[in-house]
Amino acid sequence: MSQEPSSNNNKYVPGLEGVIGAQTAISHVDGANGRLVYQGYVIADLAEEMSFEEVAFLLWEGHLPNRSELEGLSLELAGHRELTQAATFALDALPSDTDPMDVLRSVVSVQGVEHRLAKPTPALAIHATGSFPTILAKFYRRQLGLEPIEPRRELGHAANYLYMMNGKESSPEIVRALNTYLVLLADHGMNASTFTARVIASTESDLTSSLVGAIGALKGPAHGGAPSAVLEQLEEIGAAKDAETHMRDMRKRKEKFMGFGHRVYRVYDPRAKILKAMCERMNPKFYALASKVEEIALTILHEEHPERPQSTNVEFYSAGVLQAIGLPKEFFTPTFATARVAGWSAHVLEQAGHNRIIRPQSEYIGPEPRKPVPLAERA
Amino acid sequence: MSQEPSSNNNKYVPGLEGVIGAQTAISHVDGANGRLVYQGYVIADLAEEMSFEEVAFLLWEGHLPNRSELEGLSLELAGHRELTQAATFALDALPSDTDPMDVLRSVVSVQGVEHRLAKPTPALAIHATGSFPTILAKFYRRQLGLEPIEPRRELGHAANYLYMMNGKESSPEIVRALNTYLVLLADHGMNASTFTARVIASTESDLTSSLVGAIGALKGPAHGGAPSAVLEQLEEIGAAKDAETHMRDMRKRKEKFMGFGHRVYRVYDPRAKILKAMCERMNPKFYALASKVEEIALTILHEEHPERPQSTNVEFYSAGVLQAIGLPKEFFTPTFATARVAGWSAHVLEQAGHNRIIRPQSEYIGPEPRKPVPLAERA
Repeated sequence: MSQEPSSNNNKYVPGLEGVIGAQTAISHVDGANGRLVYQGYVIADLAEEMSFEEVAFLLWEGHLPNRSELEGLSLELAGHRELTQAATFALDALPSDTDPMDVLRSVVSVQGVEHRLAKPTPALAIHATGSFPTILAKFYRRQLGLEPIEPRRELGHAANYLYMMNGKESSPEIVRALNTYLVLLADHGMNASTFTARVIASTESDLTSSLVGAIGALKGPAHGGAPSAVLEQLEEIGAAKDAETHMRDMRKRKEKFMGFGHRVYRVYDPRAKILKAMCERMNPKFYALASKVEEIALTILHEEHPERPQSTNVEFYSAGVLQAIGLPKEFFTPTFATARVAGWSAHVLEQAGHNRIIRPQSEYIGPEPRKPVPLAERA
Repeated sequence: MSQEPSSNNNKYVPGLEGVIGAQTAISHVDGANGRLVYQGYVIADLAEEMSFEEVAFLLWEGHLPNRSELEGLSLELAGHRELTQAATFALDALPSDTDPMDVLRSVVSVQGVEHRLAKPTPALAIHATGSFPTILAKFYRRQLGLEPIEPRRELGHAANYLYMMNGKESSPEIVRALNTYLVLLADHGMNASTFTARVIASTESDLTSSLVGAIGALKGPAHGGAPSAVLEQLEEIGAAKDAETHMRDMRKRKEKFMGFGHRVYRVYDPRAKILKAMCERMNPKFYALASKVEEIALTILHEEHPERPQSTNVEFYSAGVLQAIGLPKEFFTPTFATARVAGWSAHVLEQAGHNRIIRPQSEYIGPEPRKPVPLAERA
């Protein structure tokens, strides 16, 4: 059957692998050199030096804020931590065993209804970003049967998230670790959730619609839904001394090692490197087992596919850092979303700036047209 | 700066125009011949002969149902028109001036939370499809300060939607017209919302996440958000006799004609053709003005771009049909979604069947990496 008219005769590339889906100044996954760049800064220079607020400003505005810009952003962010009445009702109506990613998807959607098809702006990006920790902490405490904790304006983004979760301030070391995690995960080129956000934005839809779609994509186990699976697998492996036997048996049963494999990096993921060092410092029990499991996994994966590069991905050591921070396993992916909302909204702003609807074609592989058989005559 | 590693050296194509985003047996937009094909059947053979239920079955299962399959589907669909308690609470919490597309996005999200990362199945597609009219009708009546009308199981999908909106049964002619509209709009190759649904599904996320993302994309004025704009523009033009003067003035002010332009069809959109005939029959007042406006618009557009094909799109006459059916303007795009949910969920089922994460690369156009200036030294 004939194709849709096409400006170039492409072959179908499954997963659009290698196809350029967007031009962006926001971030660059420089896989060959193992660098992640945000608006011209290498992640290693930002991760432990900058606040999440500074980096979010960088992603949205294209330059690092000066002191007054940073103060302005921090105030605006802290001033938009409250949920709307509708969002609060919707959150309270959800069954308490709801997946926190579904909570986020639903409550972000309701929180956004007050902006009727507003054009995406940095202010709306700030407001959305400000609401994520509140949604998660409120729901977490409801699950535990505890009263919600009101946000505190004088706390930074990471500190306030932990404060609302736990009802008490965390140590500076823990706050700093969460801040670094949020900075590291804030953006990452054209991943599936960011691409989702851009496709939605390309229809001239609003920021909320883009974010809600992106949350749904991040939920998928093949994207952001796996860091808790790393912990579960480590628990199953149990002890470093049994790891190799256990893991070779796993491969015989065709089981996947969680936290390995990445389409882009040819050398060690720069985020995994920083998170690994944090794990070693903050979570020695996790690190002892995880670093052994990593070594064995890389050995086995190399035996199976010597042509493939090293592939410890960001999720592997994220699990240990988030555990050390004290976040519950079910909140790992939602915390990833709490970081990535900065990147998603930066991409929506960029996409909305020079727009062209993202609408690829499809290749029809169904039957040739024939006349339908009337209902009475169908077998 | 170096590219991400790439399997082929593509140039960036804005909007992915002409790039094949998926292979599909579900539908084929045969732009060259002006045909829309669903699973091997030409739309003209389905639109006025088949129920929406039959066509939804076709899209999901790949073949037309026999009598017992159709009865099974109809029962299952009618049995899942009720909202969950959480969805009802969320709907009732929304401000009554909420955009109905935001209502749909939010309430579909809440309605889906009971399926925790369930693998997409035809049963879940049926349940989601069954809920759309209930959500819209409940909200519509709330806006009017009227009691909600409970769904009636013995009514077909189109008839029950109108019954829940209006509190009384519509005439067979009106029900038939809505049914035809739903069939015509049920799928359309790789449009932006369907592509969104597939990208989300490709991460192994769930059906609800895909549908919620797709609703957000359809909301965009460059995609599904324009049929009410057609009505508004016709109202502004006012009368057939003044249309040409008015429309030439509009072009001088660089205003766009609503309901024209399509990336794929080279000849008249087969759906627009059927809807145009329906308009002529059902909505003569609309038709008298609209057909004149269409003629002038095509003349002016041809003068400006003689190389471009005719381009009346599906939205132009949709507006007249939906108006004749008695649906309020704000519910045009949500009614489009009520049709398209069949196609979206069919694409999610297809994508989930042979999965590969859809993750294009991006081309970095930001600055070369440099060292960050410390906060105290920034200008």
